[in-house]
Amino acid sequence: MKHTLSVLVKNRAGAVAEATDVFRRRGISFRSISCAETEDFDVSRLVLTVEDHEAELESIADELRAQDVVAMVEDLSRRDFVDRELVLVKVDVTRETTTQIMQVCEVFRASVIGMGQETMTVEMTGDTQKVDGFIRMLRPFGIRSLARTGVVAMKRGDDD
Amino acid sequence: MKHTLSVLVKNRAGAVAEATDVFRRRGISFRSISCAETEDFDVSRLVLTVEDHEAELESIADELRAQDVVAMVEDLSRRDFVDRELVLVKVDVTRETTTQIMQVCEVFRASVIGMGQETMTVEMTGDTQKVDGFIRMLRPFGIRSLARTGVVAMKRGDDD
Repeated sequence: MKHTLSVLVKNRAGAVAEATDVFRRRGISFRSISCAETEDFDVSRLVLTVEDHEAELESIADELRAQDVVAMVEDLSRRDFVDRELVLVKVDVTRETTTQIMQVCEVFRASVIGMGQETMTVEMTGDTQKVDGFIRMLRPFGIRSLARTGVVAMKRGDDD
Repeated sequence: MKHTLSVLVKNRAGAVAEATDVFRRRGISFRSISCAETEDFDVSRLVLTVEDHEAELESIADELRAQDVVAMVEDLSRRDFVDRELVLVKVDVTRETTTQIMQVCEVFRASVIGMGQETMTVEMTGDTQKVDGFIRMLRPFGIRSLARTGVVAMKRGDDD
């Protein structure tokens, strides 16, 4: 099962290295990681997704909270939240496959953001499952390059 | 000036911590960081943006390349590439401000993905400048929560 941790870290050199080191020491690798500014300039939000390791998550969260660079830790797997990620895919196109690829893009509400002689670059957003599905549909055409942002998440409702 | 580094790292525990540690040792903090799977299951793409530090970037790239977990480093500031990030914003709404906020969303092609009693949650994608502009437009209404993915980037044209 996938778990999503949201960690608010102070904006200072080494904050991400310090926070991710907690996982490294336990030999846990991430499914994805993203970190960027929040509404507060002094704080960044680090969102990590990991597969399994349920038993350790509680003590990992405690270890993170004890770090000076960490302001807050939430296990988003446990609450109602929306999650989204963005993917860029450069897919091979020929005269024959263009229509099919455009149809896949339409179904997944993806946008074409670039065209080459032999490729099309598309942008798509959705939850992890939808992004996985989109990639699966494009794979048979030939994926030349793929870049995902990793997950960001936000609580549903009015709470911040 | 903003610089974007794209680093392909092997999918193993501690890869992100090892790669980001190069920056920590030099006291450089990130503007954003994102890491997720690529088309190759054994490799993840880590995209880092930093402000300034031009003089050090070359030797940082060399230091990264020397690491066992690193498969490739590219300075994307130097080539033609598209960059995108995704932002989720939970903004305060009242009966009076709803229309104005919806107009901002329309201009920036943002989608409403959630409504609360007092807030609206919107999703938007674009390059960093566009995302910054969107946030600037929403700030006067009151931003309750904000989450950005960090930048992902892809070369223009057919090259992978």
